[in-house]
Amino acid sequence: MPTRVYLDWNATAPLRSEARAAMVAAFDLIGNPSSVHAEGREARRLVEEARAALASAVGALPRNVVFTSAGTEANALALSPGLKGASGGPVQRLLVSAVEHASVLAGGRFQADAVGQIRVTRSGAVDLGHLKDLLGSGPPALVSVMAANNETGALQPIAEAARIVHEAGGLLHVDAIQALGKIPFNIKAIDADLATFSAHKIGGPKGVGALVVAEGLTGLEPVLRGGGQELGRRAGTENVAGIAGFGAAVKAALEALPEDAERMTTLRDHLENDLRAIAGATIFSQDVARLPNTTLFTAPGLKAETAVIGFDLEGIAVSSGSACSSGKVQPSHVLSAMGFDPATAQGAVRLSLGWSTGPEDINRALEAWRKLGNTLLKG
Amino acid sequence: MPTRVYLDWNATAPLRSEARAAMVAAFDLIGNPSSVHAEGREARRLVEEARAALASAVGALPRNVVFTSAGTEANALALSPGLKGASGGPVQRLLVSAVEHASVLAGGRFQADAVGQIRVTRSGAVDLGHLKDLLGSGPPALVSVMAANNETGALQPIAEAARIVHEAGGLLHVDAIQALGKIPFNIKAIDADLATFSAHKIGGPKGVGALVVAEGLTGLEPVLRGGGQELGRRAGTENVAGIAGFGAAVKAALEALPEDAERMTTLRDHLENDLRAIAGATIFSQDVARLPNTTLFTAPGLKAETAVIGFDLEGIAVSSGSACSSGKVQPSHVLSAMGFDPATAQGAVRLSLGWSTGPEDINRALEAWRKLGNTLLKG
Repeated sequence: MPTRVYLDWNATAPLRSEARAAMVAAFDLIGNPSSVHAEGREARRLVEEARAALASAVGALPRNVVFTSAGTEANALALSPGLKGASGGPVQRLLVSAVEHASVLAGGRFQADAVGQIRVTRSGAVDLGHLKDLLGSGPPALVSVMAANNETGALQPIAEAARIVHEAGGLLHVDAIQALGKIPFNIKAIDADLATFSAHKIGGPKGVGALVVAEGLTGLEPVLRGGGQELGRRAGTENVAGIAGFGAAVKAALEALPEDAERMTTLRDHLENDLRAIAGATIFSQDVARLPNTTLFTAPGLKAETAVIGFDLEGIAVSSGSACSSGKVQPSHVLSAMGFDPATAQGAVRLSLGWSTGPEDINRALEAWRKLGNTLLKG
Repeated sequence: MPTRVYLDWNATAPLRSEARAAMVAAFDLIGNPSSVHAEGREARRLVEEARAALASAVGALPRNVVFTSAGTEANALALSPGLKGASGGPVQRLLVSAVEHASVLAGGRFQADAVGQIRVTRSGAVDLGHLKDLLGSGPPALVSVMAANNETGALQPIAEAARIVHEAGGLLHVDAIQALGKIPFNIKAIDADLATFSAHKIGGPKGVGALVVAEGLTGLEPVLRGGGQELGRRAGTENVAGIAGFGAAVKAALEALPEDAERMTTLRDHLENDLRAIAGATIFSQDVARLPNTTLFTAPGLKAETAVIGFDLEGIAVSSGSACSSGKVQPSHVLSAMGFDPATAQGAVRLSLGWSTGPEDINRALEAWRKLGNTLLKG
């Protein structure tokens, strides 16, 4: 039986060998990082080394990195009423782009009536004109715009968004979970006020994330209270091994980024050209800048649910949009926000590539499409 | 150099070999448990096996187990305004014992003025008469009483508390983090409505916990939203390896419990008898039922901070109460609640034992005390 082909890296990446080694090493450290004895201090050291690694990778100070249990928790922590920036704030409402991840759309701790949505174009790029209008029509806002969309791969104009938001006295949160390790990301260069990251998207373990804040940001209200960990911003005994794995994965991912991005772009372009030729596929967000690894496509008559199962039976793991919704194949809110009708939104299949994806994986996926295409499209 | 002696198991336990093996095996599963393809389903299977293991260990149904990032998050989730029991509720306020962990004292999502404290006796047992008075003087309450105190090891009368709370139309949450694996615990036998657990206290990994609820409980409001995971009660990609490690640790801990408890009790009694004889030590909570592994003691003139450092330099890891407060040695709120003055509360040292603790560890600790005692007590 041929080995499986994994093309669902935006859902989660395999564990990098560097992360695995760091975690296995951490398993031998028995202390609680909050304990003052030698065992505690050794565990603390691992956590702080990982903190420094992530901070350095994204242009932040270690003291401004808060480790969390996942990107979802980092987003929940970020969307904190009461935030005040070095210049601007306190914020009184939340504006999120319509294509954000569900954990951002949930609005964190803002009341539902204090949350507004920023429109996106048919290409999935946030509509900066609409953002300006929204900012002008109310009190200072926290604005959340992702660096790269998890479904389409579309990159957002976050540096420009930051300028616009700051001019209006607001603060910008950037969900950079899909961007990290795939494109360069630097919180300072973008001038974002908060940014969230997730370990398992870059080859770290599942169950670890981080919120990184700009120097001078205040008013962040903890989600988890009752312990002084993470400088009082997140209570709970740290996931020491997981955090160590995150740190190792960040280092490895950033080192490999330039080469990986180039290779993935080549493979992705080959994939898309052939999908267009064989299937008459439409690639979403193809006329805006995208991540090097992500292809979201549809073809006339395609049902994503059937396609995902069909590919799976052929040994190929693909997805229909986000994996973060309880195993159900649901119509994509991202495509709906981009103005596509429900039939199209239910007919989109995502192939996402990673550092170990090779030409043979792409060929296997295209072969499967050749085999399945007629069946998938005839209904 | 002699090996170190670890006597701080209530802060965190070493990783069990069973948990390590389960985690390393999980590292090879690359899928996201929310993905529908084979890789996703394999990861899902691991999570569900661990869920069944924990459910079985504590007398619950798997569907009533919610995995979290730690005991702190499980406590935050449990303390949810809007809870309704199969009989009783909705709750309108929160009553917590004065000796609860900081993550319970923080009150979850109850407003500060809706949180009351239940007194404890000088032995550290919750005052059930006071609980009755408090319940009688207001609307239905969620009551939080821990199964065993992390500092003194004192067991609380939780089954009796459950009866009293239910008679008053309230609900009982039990923080069973220190109890699990050290004494039998069954949520159904106790008739508790919610119970929290932590993996790393029983030899699972740091960064994994669980909230277990009674069948029929409704109104639990998620802390983390924006994803359908954990039956909609906790959004975020699951810590698959960590959860697998938790499941393996639960099985191993429960299997070893009877033998471990007997051995620890013998060692603990030896330790306490000698501490009394050598140091004139007072053991806290010695006249109530306690965990088999925990000794909190003081002696005239003892300074906990100095003692913890002194023991550490002798190669012995001990603590001064809870490790969950950012590495600072603080006076114990537990001893204050028990009516001890600040000097006493700052002079308490905790030695907690675990499954690999042997007679030689206890002897090394007693030797260190013989060596240090005079210095520690002369100030």
